[in-house]
Amino acid sequence: MITPRFTVLAEGTFGVETAKTAASAIRYLPDRVSSILDSRFAGSTVGEVIGFGGPIPIVSSLGDALALKPRPEALLIGIAPQGGTLPGAWRTVLSEALDAGLDVWSGLHTHLTEDPDLTARAAALGRELVDLRKPPSDLVVGTGLAQETSAMRVLTVGSDCNVGKMTTALELRRGLEERRIRTGFAATGQTGILIAGSGIAVDAVVSDFVSGATERVTLEAGRGVDVVLIEGQGSLMHPGYSGVTLGLLHGVLPQCMVLCAMPGRSSIYGGNHDWVDLPALDEVIRRYEEALAWAHPDTPGKVVAVALATYDLDEGEARTAVKEAERITGLPTTDPIRFGVAPIVEAVEARRAEVTGATSG
Amino acid sequence: MITPRFTVLAEGTFGVETAKTAASAIRYLPDRVSSILDSRFAGSTVGEVIGFGGPIPIVSSLGDALALKPRPEALLIGIAPQGGTLPGAWRTVLSEALDAGLDVWSGLHTHLTEDPDLTARAAALGRELVDLRKPPSDLVVGTGLAQETSAMRVLTVGSDCNVGKMTTALELRRGLEERRIRTGFAATGQTGILIAGSGIAVDAVVSDFVSGATERVTLEAGRGVDVVLIEGQGSLMHPGYSGVTLGLLHGVLPQCMVLCAMPGRSSIYGGNHDWVDLPALDEVIRRYEEALAWAHPDTPGKVVAVALATYDLDEGEARTAVKEAERITGLPTTDPIRFGVAPIVEAVEARRAEVTGATSG
Repeated sequence: MITPRFTVLAEGTFGVETAKTAASAIRYLPDRVSSILDSRFAGSTVGEVIGFGGPIPIVSSLGDALALKPRPEALLIGIAPQGGTLPGAWRTVLSEALDAGLDVWSGLHTHLTEDPDLTARAAALGRELVDLRKPPSDLVVGTGLAQETSAMRVLTVGSDCNVGKMTTALELRRGLEERRIRTGFAATGQTGILIAGSGIAVDAVVSDFVSGATERVTLEAGRGVDVVLIEGQGSLMHPGYSGVTLGLLHGVLPQCMVLCAMPGRSSIYGGNHDWVDLPALDEVIRRYEEALAWAHPDTPGKVVAVALATYDLDEGEARTAVKEAERITGLPTTDPIRFGVAPIVEAVEARRAEVTGATSG
Repeated sequence: MITPRFTVLAEGTFGVETAKTAASAIRYLPDRVSSILDSRFAGSTVGEVIGFGGPIPIVSSLGDALALKPRPEALLIGIAPQGGTLPGAWRTVLSEALDAGLDVWSGLHTHLTEDPDLTARAAALGRELVDLRKPPSDLVVGTGLAQETSAMRVLTVGSDCNVGKMTTALELRRGLEERRIRTGFAATGQTGILIAGSGIAVDAVVSDFVSGATERVTLEAGRGVDVVLIEGQGSLMHPGYSGVTLGLLHGVLPQCMVLCAMPGRSSIYGGNHDWVDLPALDEVIRRYEEALAWAHPDTPGKVVAVALATYDLDEGEARTAVKEAERITGLPTTDPIRFGVAPIVEAVEARRAEVTGATSG
C-alpha cells in the first residue's frame, strides 16, 4: 500500500476528539496531508486549531484543496462515526473528487467498493476506491497461533473507546526504536492501517473471526522483531464493543499490556452508553488480567504501565492525574504525548527481561 | 419463513456430536425431516443410530431421498463445521438437488446466495437458496436496548461450545409453556433460526454489531411474553469464540442465566483449542456473573441453574455428575433431555418472582 498525498474530508467535524482519523493522519503522516476540508476553520492552519500539525492549511472546498501545490492525489474520509456509515451529504463531494482525478480512501463500515454508483464512476475515470476497513476474505477462527511468534506481544487496552490505544502503541514504537529495539506494529483499526500501510480492522470482520484476524496481524507484524505492539480496540466494559475487545485479547494472548485511559471520564463515552460507570483503574487492570487468563492460564500477561490522555486538562491537572493514577495502580504512568513515553518504554523493557528470562530459564 | 420438508445432507458426519444441525432438526422439527443422507448408515433409521428420531430413514444418495413419499421439498446442509465453509465434494450434490427441483438451505458461513454458479443455476430453475446464517444488512452498534423489554431475559451460557445451550433453551421453553407462562425464544445461531423460523446468527455478523444484533432479536422475541429465552453462543473461555460470547452477554444483559456444561470435559473442545483448561463449574459461574456486571452494574444477572449434557455417560454416571454439579454450584442441576427440565423451570420461575418483585417494589 503506497500512501498518496491526501486532502482530508472533515467538514463540520475537525477538532481533537471527533475527527480521529484526520488528527492521527496529521500526527503520524504529516507529509502526506496536503489539506483539511472543514469550512468552519477555512484560512486557519491545522496547528492553530488542534495545537499540532503546524502549517497544513484548512480549506473550505474541494476546489481550494485542488488548487494547492503540490496537488493532492486522493481524498481521505477523515472521520470514524459510530456505526461507520457514510453521511449522505458527503456523497456529492466524493463524486466530485473522483471527477477531479483523485482516488478516494475510506475507513467507514459502509464499503465504497460495494457502492454501485461510486464504483461505476471510479471505474469509468480510472480512479481507485480504497476501503481501509474491508477485511480479507480468507479469515479463520483463532486457535492461539499468536503464541508462536518469538517477539514479545504487547497489547494496548483501554478503560473505554477513544482513550489513546493506537497513539500509545505508535509512541511506544518510536520510543523502543530509539533504544534500538526492533519493533513491529500490528494495526487493528482503519486509522492504524492507514498509518502502518497494512493490518486488519477487527471490528469489521465477521465476529467468529476476530481472534483469528488478530493472530494473523500479530504474526505478520511480529516477524523479525523483538517486540510486537498490537493496537487495542474498545473496552471490556463497553456494552457496544466489548466482544471485539475480548476476541482481540484472546487472539493476541499478550505477555504485556499497557492500560490507556482518560482521567476525567467516569462513565463510558457517548450518550448511548454513559449508563455504564467506569471503575477505578486498579479494578480495570484486574479485569483485563483476569479475562486474559481465562484463555491463557499458564503464562498470563500483565498490565505494566498506564498511558493517560490528558489533552482536555491543563498542565497542573495533568500532572496531578498522572500522580493519582500511579498511586492507585502502583504502575509507571505518563501521558505519552504530553510528558513523553519513556516510563512506558522502561516498563515494557523490564517485562521483556522477565518474559525472556522465563522462556530461556 | 415457512419450513419445507427436508432431506438433510450429513454424508460422513451423522451422529450425536458432529452433525448438530441434523440432530437438532430431527429433535425439534421431526415432521419436517424426510430423510438423512449419510451412506455409512444407509438402510438404518435415525432412531437406531442416535437413539431418538424414530423411523426417519437414512439413505445413501440424493436419488434415494427423492424416491421417498412424500417427496422432500428442500435439501438442508446438516453440519456446522468450524469456520463454516462448504466442503468441495458437496457442491455437486447441491447442484443435483437444484436440478431435481429442491430448494437448498444452508447454515454455513460461506453464503450460497453469494456463489455465482449456484445462484445462476437456482435462478434458471426457479429454486430458492436460503442462507440461515446471513445477517440483515441494517445492523447497528448495541446500546443496551434489550433492557426495554418487560419480559425477563434468560440467557443460556456455556463452559464451552457444543454443550447444549440451544437445546436447554428449547426444553426450557417447552417446560415454561406447559406451566402457561408466555415464553419467547430468540435464536442466535443457524440451527436455532431453522427451528424458530427467525433470528440472527450473531457469529456471522460484523463484530461491531454483535450486541446490537442480540438486542434486536431479544426485543423481537420478547414482545408479548413473560419470559424471553436467548440462545447463547460459545464460551467466555473459548479462545476462538469468546468475543461473540461477551458481545452476546452484553447485548442481552440478562437478569437470569442457565449454565450449560458437559461433565466429562476438562478442556475446551477440539484439537485446536484443547490447550485451554476448563475450571470447576462454580468458577465458570463466577466468571459469567462478573463479566455481565461489567456492563450491567445496577441489576446484574445471576446463574440460577445448571444443565448438563450427559449423553456420553451411562445412567449411573449421569446421576453422579448431576449430584456433583449440585454440590459444587449449590444450584438445581439436571440433564434436561435425560432427566427432564423441571428443576430449571422452577429456578427460572423463582428468579422471575425475585426480578418482578424488585421491579414493582
